[in-house]
Amino acid sequence: MSIVTVGTVAFDAIETPFGKTDKIVGGAATYIAWAASYFTKDLNVVSVIGDDFDMEELHKLEARGVDTSGIEIKAGKKSFFWAGKYHMDMNSRDTLATELNVLLEFNPVLPEAYRTADFLMLGNIDPMLQLNVIQQMAKRPKLIIMDTMNFWMDSTPEQLNAVIKEVDVLTINDAEARQLSGEYSLVKAASKIQEMGPKFLVIKKGEHGALLFHKNHVFFAPALPLESVFDPTGAGDTFAGGFVGWLDKTKDISFDNMKRAIIFGSAMASFCVEKFGTERLQSLSEEEIHERIEEFVQLVQVDIDLVG
Amino acid sequence: MSIVTVGTVAFDAIETPFGKTDKIVGGAATYIAWAASYFTKDLNVVSVIGDDFDMEELHKLEARGVDTSGIEIKAGKKSFFWAGKYHMDMNSRDTLATELNVLLEFNPVLPEAYRTADFLMLGNIDPMLQLNVIQQMAKRPKLIIMDTMNFWMDSTPEQLNAVIKEVDVLTINDAEARQLSGEYSLVKAASKIQEMGPKFLVIKKGEHGALLFHKNHVFFAPALPLESVFDPTGAGDTFAGGFVGWLDKTKDISFDNMKRAIIFGSAMASFCVEKFGTERLQSLSEEEIHERIEEFVQLVQVDIDLVG
Repeated sequence: MSIVTVGTVAFDAIETPFGKTDKIVGGAATYIAWAASYFTKDLNVVSVIGDDFDMEELHKLEARGVDTSGIEIKAGKKSFFWAGKYHMDMNSRDTLATELNVLLEFNPVLPEAYRTADFLMLGNIDPMLQLNVIQQMAKRPKLIIMDTMNFWMDSTPEQLNAVIKEVDVLTINDAEARQLSGEYSLVKAASKIQEMGPKFLVIKKGEHGALLFHKNHVFFAPALPLESVFDPTGAGDTFAGGFVGWLDKTKDISFDNMKRAIIFGSAMASFCVEKFGTERLQSLSEEEIHERIEEFVQLVQVDIDLVG
Repeated sequence: MSIVTVGTVAFDAIETPFGKTDKIVGGAATYIAWAASYFTKDLNVVSVIGDDFDMEELHKLEARGVDTSGIEIKAGKKSFFWAGKYHMDMNSRDTLATELNVLLEFNPVLPEAYRTADFLMLGNIDPMLQLNVIQQMAKRPKLIIMDTMNFWMDSTPEQLNAVIKEVDVLTINDAEARQLSGEYSLVKAASKIQEMGPKFLVIKKGEHGALLFHKNHVFFAPALPLESVFDPTGAGDTFAGGFVGWLDKTKDISFDNMKRAIIFGSAMASFCVEKFGTERLQSLSEEEIHERIEEFVQLVQVDIDLVG
């Protein structure tokens, strides 16, 4: 089995109530790759960077078995850069700078070897590029997972809907699910969104957990109450990486296994927010991941004997 | 075993995006009593009403085994009245009218028979009255549960802290836990609040579920994603009623049983919001409650085999 992911590989400058960074490596595909690398070694990244990029960081991913040959390096150009400042609640943030740079001319071309992957993980990026990547696949992947955001709902809704129609799993947050469906109730929203294409809908609620909808089934994964959230950047992408990584590792795309994938994604995201950028994701042990999973399981563990 | 609850018994006029009511019967003690009545028949209410009250509604509670002899009826006076209008998100609301009426001269006096109750459930009301009621108990109840709100944190923080010091379980929402503790992280907030007195802290997060903290243990109960929330009025009180009702029924105040109590409270609250006021709470069957509990259990059910 194998995963292809497309998304940004970028520089971020982050300010939180607890500190600030200079330019550090970020981007959706970076977080997805780090998280998924704990579950699978057949992971292929499609992205674009400038020659200003920190190649050492790419080498670290390669050392974990990630194939980065699908990352185009544009000579004389600068990498995508985002700067933002989080408020105390860590849910809202101000964007201080967005320099698209190489992203403006991103035209993803999948290496031949990538085109038969079983899992296609589309990071949040222009829907036209997401569709372009789907069309380059030589065979229909077993599962196409798509992340997106409200920006595309506002700016290019038709293009967005065209991609949504083609995917199996859509991951968005609760406000976006409401916007996309025009329904306030998440149950109704999930029903409408499934009619738009995706058989599975993951609604990410940040510190309030995540919901997985499929037909008339619903699963809820809590978020772990954390002593401190240091930097939420990349948590959603890390979630997606853990999710698809687990599915690839287990070769099982049943609803029951997706529930497990949601827990693994949530666990990886809970690590991500403990330090700036990908720092925490770079130093995890299998034992730490298992302990964290156990905490998620215990958090909702209750024995109810209704006969008693 | 037995429960004494003190709180408002009142008229509400409610407007939601789905409809509006004339004056209907509400108040914290009303919701607590309805919810708890499905678990215990030794339930005693302390409150105050005017002679304008709808006595038929009190008789319905009595028919379910609720002792209302602790509800003082003030001749020639009007009952407490609240009118409010909910916004589309059902989390925020505008208060259209607050007529304290009899509440201004509420001086709760516990009938002798009430003073040896095992459970004391203090609904949200002036902390001075809550403390007054605690002091009237002939013996220290096995468990004192207190609900309160940000209004008292703003207006009478010293009196509030004096009551909090005396109780075993405090139930507040997430914003209130942050305000009370001065900590943004709910884990840190829970730790600080436990130092203020309560050995157990329940943080209610509405549509996002509820957390139970005790020492370094934490339990999370999800909220059931609902097709439609019709009227959230009284959901928190209904939660408290189901919580204390279950504890009284099972005579077990261990952390493990409190986890069950949280699920039963959440289930009762999920019924409450399906119709205006107490309407849905007046017509439940044991079977419906068990089915709902099963839905809560299934919602987070996942089997993870970490060895595999």
